[in-house]
Amino acid sequence: MARRRKHWGWGYEDQQPTAQQLRGAMPLVRERLGFDAQDPEEPVPLGAAAVPAASPLPPPPPGVTWDADAHARARHAWGSSYLDVVRGLRGRFDHAPDAVARPRDEAQVAAVLEWATETGVVVVPYGGGTSVVGGVTPAVDGPVVSLDLAALDRVLEVDAVSRSARVQAGALGPVLERQLAEHDLTMRCFPQSFEFSTLGGWIATRAGGHFATGPTHVDDLVEAVRAITPSGTWASRRLPGSGAGPSPDRALLGSEGILGVITEAWVRVQPHPEHRGGRAVRFGSFAMGVEAVRALAQSGLQPANCRLLDPAEAAFTGAGDGGHALLVLAFESTDAPVEADLARGLELCAECGGEWDDAPSRGGAAGAWRDAFLQAPYLRDVLVALGVMSETFETAITWERFGALREAVVDAARAALDDPRAMVTCRFTHAYPDGPAPYFTVLAPARRGDEEAQWWAVKRACSDALLAAGATITHHHAVGRDHRPWYDRQRPEPFAIALAAAKAAVDPAGILNPGVLMDPLTAPLP
Amino acid sequence: MARRRKHWGWGYEDQQPTAQQLRGAMPLVRERLGFDAQDPEEPVPLGAAAVPAASPLPPPPPGVTWDADAHARARHAWGSSYLDVVRGLRGRFDHAPDAVARPRDEAQVAAVLEWATETGVVVVPYGGGTSVVGGVTPAVDGPVVSLDLAALDRVLEVDAVSRSARVQAGALGPVLERQLAEHDLTMRCFPQSFEFSTLGGWIATRAGGHFATGPTHVDDLVEAVRAITPSGTWASRRLPGSGAGPSPDRALLGSEGILGVITEAWVRVQPHPEHRGGRAVRFGSFAMGVEAVRALAQSGLQPANCRLLDPAEAAFTGAGDGGHALLVLAFESTDAPVEADLARGLELCAECGGEWDDAPSRGGAAGAWRDAFLQAPYLRDVLVALGVMSETFETAITWERFGALREAVVDAARAALDDPRAMVTCRFTHAYPDGPAPYFTVLAPARRGDEEAQWWAVKRACSDALLAAGATITHHHAVGRDHRPWYDRQRPEPFAIALAAAKAAVDPAGILNPGVLMDPLTAPLP
Repeated sequence: MARRRKHWGWGYEDQQPTAQQLRGAMPLVRERLGFDAQDPEEPVPLGAAAVPAASPLPPPPPGVTWDADAHARARHAWGSSYLDVVRGLRGRFDHAPDAVARPRDEAQVAAVLEWATETGVVVVPYGGGTSVVGGVTPAVDGPVVSLDLAALDRVLEVDAVSRSARVQAGALGPVLERQLAEHDLTMRCFPQSFEFSTLGGWIATRAGGHFATGPTHVDDLVEAVRAITPSGTWASRRLPGSGAGPSPDRALLGSEGILGVITEAWVRVQPHPEHRGGRAVRFGSFAMGVEAVRALAQSGLQPANCRLLDPAEAAFTGAGDGGHALLVLAFESTDAPVEADLARGLELCAECGGEWDDAPSRGGAAGAWRDAFLQAPYLRDVLVALGVMSETFETAITWERFGALREAVVDAARAALDDPRAMVTCRFTHAYPDGPAPYFTVLAPARRGDEEAQWWAVKRACSDALLAAGATITHHHAVGRDHRPWYDRQRPEPFAIALAAAKAAVDPAGILNPGVLMDPLTAPLP
Repeated sequence: MARRRKHWGWGYEDQQPTAQQLRGAMPLVRERLGFDAQDPEEPVPLGAAAVPAASPLPPPPPGVTWDADAHARARHAWGSSYLDVVRGLRGRFDHAPDAVARPRDEAQVAAVLEWATETGVVVVPYGGGTSVVGGVTPAVDGPVVSLDLAALDRVLEVDAVSRSARVQAGALGPVLERQLAEHDLTMRCFPQSFEFSTLGGWIATRAGGHFATGPTHVDDLVEAVRAITPSGTWASRRLPGSGAGPSPDRALLGSEGILGVITEAWVRVQPHPEHRGGRAVRFGSFAMGVEAVRALAQSGLQPANCRLLDPAEAAFTGAGDGGHALLVLAFESTDAPVEADLARGLELCAECGGEWDDAPSRGGAAGAWRDAFLQAPYLRDVLVALGVMSETFETAITWERFGALREAVVDAARAALDDPRAMVTCRFTHAYPDGPAPYFTVLAPARRGDEEAQWWAVKRACSDALLAAGATITHHHAVGRDHRPWYDRQRPEPFAIALAAAKAAVDPAGILNPGVLMDPLTAPLP
């Protein structure tokens, strides 16, 4: 039998650490975070969990697999935010859908949407469930079905000449990459959620990818998108580029399931890089590192990795000494040696005071950081069980305003937490010629039982600070339900009107993920 | 007094060649095109031209400059397509607007839209009038005003740290670049229409820029867009990147004036490149050159120029010997020497059979091609006067289908022209890892007096061939009115529904450029 996902949190059922293992991790919390872990909290078993009774649903469309057992409903009740993990651990599944539909093909997706349109049942498209913004949480009035795309996980076609592949939207990162590897190709889209997120989810949320510069969002890797809407199939042509009207793909990218259910896409792939080179560069201050990243981003060198960690974050992830900011700088190429680019990149770092050891970074500080990056979601479950609040905020802003932004966000988080033990760190996940994508991590003792209030206080304070500083409410975490108050303030009002009208036109019954990105329309359009 | 644009065709009034000069160019037509020019045709003077009487308009909004003289109305009757030039030369101005509004600021733009919404007068946003697809032709029933943004031509703000500039939408290419040059910066967006096209026009039509690879469309150079709509100001934040819902900027990019009037944008700028290097590479066949461009586009090298001309086009533009395809390959960098990239690029060319002279290309074959590129619009006026039909079709397609596409388009053009003297050539304007943007040029003896039928026969045949081959109806010429039949077939139907609803929501009176991209809605939405 296939391994089953934990009914809460990250990973599989057999990956949940025991109470004894959790207890063993407590000294590490003290060492790394500087404050004490709390007594390990055991997850409430599924059998004892509060999964609300399902509302009765009309008879489902024939042929579609339909799950209404507790595990399926609990698993689809939340995404993967800090609060989602806390609530899942405690056995709270307030927003469990009434059923989970598992279509096996596009026709079944269309059948579910038709059924939902006729019966008025809400449909929440679900990929891997890794949303950290409430994007897949069925928090709606009335009957609701979670539409799980997991069965649509095949690479259907590979065009090695044009370096493209047609992939079903439900494919998880590793599943997609394994199939591409059979053709010696790779998509190289590795969000932190890679293990449990899907191609369709990446597209629907404009996920941040592997590359720190150049094609940073999945947007740039998409050649064509295919989605099922209540008004028919929204399928663009395979095109390397086009200027025919506003891009239909860009309208789906970031649509978060409110316009249609993405079923497949042609994506750009490439051979595995043959040439790699990198260093971990130390800077005496974060500000010096910032100047180096700006120089790199404006140089045209396009490093594959260019992640700057402030001294505290470098130390926390085991990659730094606490006294230095750390830049994980790496180049890769499928075609030509990268030594010259790396040498020029390091020159730019040196001009900003950077220093490095003359050995490749893999396995060293950069390797430590990479491992920590991929293990972070597992670690968070451990931290939650040990009473540590662990939250992240990410954004993008132009260079000249970054200093003020960082100060404002850090101050806001500290003030909201009102706890001298709290840690607030900053790194850059992506860098553009005109600005960085800063990523803030907040770690603090959780106020057990009061996590929601504690979390929302920080969320509100930091999000207000982001908006006031001129930044975006999200660079790659999406909007979902959690970011709505700030997204509503950020987006241009005529665009909001246009998007609402577009939504109403393709989804006239308003069944698709209502509450995400916008409120359901309560009155017909003028 | 400022130089005045010709009331038809390209350039200024003092740039129109005399009949004698035209006669002198006839041998060159014979030499380059292999067929005879026809007797020079003199343009019909404005005084003798058929500018239809203006419909009466309601009193204009106070303070807005309002032109209804024959020159202004004739100048705004057409764009710059081959047929537009032919009709202008003959003194035909069927679709002259009833007046030309020349707002001096955003408030006046808003006042015109408000006035138009109240009075039901159609508004056609107008930048430099270089549309080759009928995008600014006021071909509508009822009263219509052309909204000329020429007075909004200032660089308002420069942020050298983040390498961005806030520029008004009416700035012509050279006007914009001159102001940026005062800050030692450049936008490097050089469409063929550069001299007479505007930033707002580039954004509204997703213009193709300077770079043959990497950031090829103006889309990639836009940091934020500001537009006035009948429902208020659509202004995005200055952000280097964002994942907050579908991009509001990408909704305006390619909207061709149907959603709002773009008034300014923050664009990405850079210092002038300090390092350049290039060669003109010869290939024994176009197919060999195609393989080289594919290798270059998939290498990650990102040459600034990578334009492949087939043997006939290379010869026609004076850059080739007729027996070889020619690749204009060039690298540029603001930061580091480009020799290593150029050397690797040439290695890839050599692997595909390419040969080159070991001297830089500037001033040589590549220089000849560049000059021809920028002079082409002037040349076309000459060709029209000499009875030569000169038309171009451009598209994009994935590599594995390019061979079949080229054959189909060339065959279709030849069959439609039904004239053994016709020349149909092909070049690549841009290249992506997954495919090229091919550009076809058709040159043939014009059937004088019957140019419209001749042109439409070719247009229909080539456009049908493009669509059937899986390509896009336009890579960077936009849709306008001329490409509508094929755009309507190309775009996903639910997207068409969404776009129509969005348009109706922000422009409820339907005053903005009706007929472009979509038909005006004749009934209220369901």
